[in-house]
Amino acid sequence: MSPIVDIHTHVYTPAYLDMLRARKKVPYVHDPADPNADSRLIILSSDDSAAIPADQRGRPVDSSYSDINVKLAFMRRHGITTSVISLANPWLDFLDAHEAQAWTERINNDLEETCAKVNSTETQVSGASKTLYAFGALPLSAPSPSIVSDEIKRLKTLPHMRGIIMGTSGLGAGLDDPALDPIWASLEETQTLLFLHPHYGLPDEAFGGAEATQRYGHVLPLALGFPLETTIAVTRMLLSGVFDRFPKIKILLAHSGGTLPFLAGRIESCIAHERHFVANGGTTQGPVRGVWDVLKTNIYLDAVVYGEAGLKAAIHAAGGHDRLLFGTDHPFFPPLDEKEDNAWLSVSTNFTAIEKTLSPDQDAVRAVLGGNAVRILNLI
Amino acid sequence: MSPIVDIHTHVYTPAYLDMLRARKKVPYVHDPADPNADSRLIILSSDDSAAIPADQRGRPVDSSYSDINVKLAFMRRHGITTSVISLANPWLDFLDAHEAQAWTERINNDLEETCAKVNSTETQVSGASKTLYAFGALPLSAPSPSIVSDEIKRLKTLPHMRGIIMGTSGLGAGLDDPALDPIWASLEETQTLLFLHPHYGLPDEAFGGAEATQRYGHVLPLALGFPLETTIAVTRMLLSGVFDRFPKIKILLAHSGGTLPFLAGRIESCIAHERHFVANGGTTQGPVRGVWDVLKTNIYLDAVVYGEAGLKAAIHAAGGHDRLLFGTDHPFFPPLDEKEDNAWLSVSTNFTAIEKTLSPDQDAVRAVLGGNAVRILNLI
Repeated sequence: MSPIVDIHTHVYTPAYLDMLRARKKVPYVHDPADPNADSRLIILSSDDSAAIPADQRGRPVDSSYSDINVKLAFMRRHGITTSVISLANPWLDFLDAHEAQAWTERINNDLEETCAKVNSTETQVSGASKTLYAFGALPLSAPSPSIVSDEIKRLKTLPHMRGIIMGTSGLGAGLDDPALDPIWASLEETQTLLFLHPHYGLPDEAFGGAEATQRYGHVLPLALGFPLETTIAVTRMLLSGVFDRFPKIKILLAHSGGTLPFLAGRIESCIAHERHFVANGGTTQGPVRGVWDVLKTNIYLDAVVYGEAGLKAAIHAAGGHDRLLFGTDHPFFPPLDEKEDNAWLSVSTNFTAIEKTLSPDQDAVRAVLGGNAVRILNLI
Repeated sequence: MSPIVDIHTHVYTPAYLDMLRARKKVPYVHDPADPNADSRLIILSSDDSAAIPADQRGRPVDSSYSDINVKLAFMRRHGITTSVISLANPWLDFLDAHEAQAWTERINNDLEETCAKVNSTETQVSGASKTLYAFGALPLSAPSPSIVSDEIKRLKTLPHMRGIIMGTSGLGAGLDDPALDPIWASLEETQTLLFLHPHYGLPDEAFGGAEATQRYGHVLPLALGFPLETTIAVTRMLLSGVFDRFPKIKILLAHSGGTLPFLAGRIESCIAHERHFVANGGTTQGPVRGVWDVLKTNIYLDAVVYGEAGLKAAIHAAGGHDRLLFGTDHPFFPPLDEKEDNAWLSVSTNFTAIEKTLSPDQDAVRAVLGGNAVRILNLI
């Protein structure tokens, strides 16, 4: 049977949730008085308003976020043979400097241990060779980049680690921050894949202010804010020359690149017409390598785009289907109708888009569903 | 010969520039002391900083913005047979209420007169039947919506008008503002095409602050801010039910929909998973019609996306190539190298993308380059 590999699937490890429970400021976990109510995770300052009752702030965090058996049941339900699990946002960016290294090591070790334990058990049950791998987190608030680099190197020694997950803020100033160069260097040197994932979305003003943003629940921040955040982050990386200085860096972009495949042509055109860049007689160093080149060389895209239109753009931008990897975004976007205990709509939408876009080339379908991940991440 | 129709091409009429010259606050035109220097158009408050010398604020406005003969020369250079000209941003949103109606009528009449005059002259020169049409502007700051509706109706009586152009702020509160309903009703009733075009981009914070935004010249605001603004605006329209209440409204989206074709699937998925919406047991009325339906029914897209990846997504989202229309965005994105007096790179990139994406179907290429515009806008 061909492997089906989910490379976009999140967990909060139990220790991570305990750490968030001990906090009183964003991000934190609040346990309602009602023991039957789900804990609440408050990760955005806009969710931490005194105007919102504490039991309704943020989002519910049920066992699907931290119980690996729920993940395994989800995988079985959807025929997923292998998952590369990663911490969900907000990762570890908020940790006090002196705690960052210890917490990161602990959480990464927990992830590694979970993979090892599950794989050993699952092998006995199913005879399949491997079930779980992980992307580690980084101690980005640590007092020196060398601590981050050390963790990148240490992760290479853990048998189930296949890369790291990072948000778009970097060290706090975005991914075009020159202070990140030692970290890019470590990622490139160790050929560690970076899974770049959004967290903050866009400022409410982009949606017409806080009231307009919240008018439609989470649709605007999630449907638009997240992918636009990714697009902005990677464009800033490109414009600042990260891909010129680190030409062998490997980055997996969440949500099929946000909107990068669609906007790549416009970005390339705007760069070519920008008078500020030295190449055009200006005063600012512009990027040497172009967007299309970077997309085909450094970038991998998940196939979490929920439709053929986006997938077609992603495949074209990536120079073919070889750089696209199936994902689910579990445990987010569960079915609202609890009776729906078959396939999740959010998952089947992506399955269908892959099949329809690549059909009748079943080799291509299998590649996106799992073969590419096995090859690129050296799985199984 | 098949027509090549440019539906995205801007002008500032001479009267409009004179009005901007008389203003001292944004938007305004500043004439440098040096008579050989181009006038400067200051349309964003961030460009109106005392820290920037007046002669360097905003952007230069040369004759290509207002001299119709420059437009005609550009058309001849690129084989464009027909252009549907429209006022460039900031349109007329900023006018004092008591001035709005008079200025709008004057500017729309000027556009109509320019079309009539050019067409009459060009027919004598080339024997071709028609060269120019126009999208009118609306007096959105007028004291009552009926003034706007009256202008929409009046525009239908002007022989060269083929729709109206509008920014994303509407009456100042975005396009999900219920106060716009009488205007949507007029547009629907008269079957007037709305050309929706970005102007404000995103807040600087989205790009990491003012310094980060300006670090790369205009690349971030133009390459990302503009298309994201359009995407947000039309998504807010959708979420607020504009397409439910006005199911026959017709909208042409600039820049191939910003990023709407790419994100349509994610938007649809986020709506389906949004607990706040009544359909999902929530408390807020969500949209009835879906994104894909609206894209195939109400939306037209220009083909100004500078690459095959975006164009493939646009064609798929629009349900085929029948709703895509060639455009240039002239006079923006001129060649930086003045010696380049052949085709503009910004134009040839879009020509090439259309040809490569649709080849070998030459009928489809001709449809996007002109046939669709002739049919949809009733030209020639």
